Amino acid sequence: MNMGSILEGIPIEIPEELIDTICSTDNVKIKRIISRGHTSHRGFWYDQEQNEFVLVIRGSAGLKLESEDKIVVMKTGDYLNIGAHVKHRVEWTDSTCETVWLAVYY
Amino acid sequence: MNMGSILEGIPIEIPEELIDTICSTDNVKIKRIISRGHTSHRGFWYDQEQNEFVLVIRGSAGLKLESEDKIVVMKTGDYLNIGAHVKHRVEWTDSTCETVWLAVYY
Repeated sequence: MNMGSILEGIPIEIPEELIDTICSTDNVKIKRIISRGHTSHRGFWYDQEQNEFVLVIRGSAGLKLESEDKIVVMKTGDYLNIGAHVKHRVEWTDSTCETVWLAVYY
Repeated sequence: MNMGSILEGIPIEIPEELIDTICSTDNVKIKRIISRGHTSHRGFWYDQEQNEFVLVIRGSAGLKLESEDKIVVMKTGDYLNIGAHVKHRVEWTDSTCETVWLAVYY
């Protein structure tokens, strides 16, 4: 039985964005991502082979999709389904608390 | 761009457990499930072809796995990875508020 809490085991200091793989098969990966003020590096775009479903469990963030003019603001409970090779980057994450994401790559 | 909030659009009355498919491909389905006091029918066991990753976004519930003696109590943030054909049932869900689940079938 593989169980746990996505809200527990968060370190006090998070010098780098923290990524834990919760579940992994050939087709699907489920990860917890924890940010605190982290953003994508300047000029960097994610360009992924797989689709990504991403859900904000706690906190907030701004995502930029290359195809959209405006930054997508995401708060607790918001999800976004990002198709494979849809270029995107994290413009900002809440600097006052952790932003906890669930990401499903499929 | 497929986006939304898993915490919005929850009806005031939920006579039956409410299931919305957020995302669906041949291999993967992502669903939102909302319960308020709902349980599996007496004697019923889920016996699924696919693996299921289930996460409590809000609320709480008790799950029974046929292979385990004790009921698994799940609260906000708790996840459980249930293998295909691992028989399980929902013994209880919080009757005072909605329990919102994210379920990934893969």
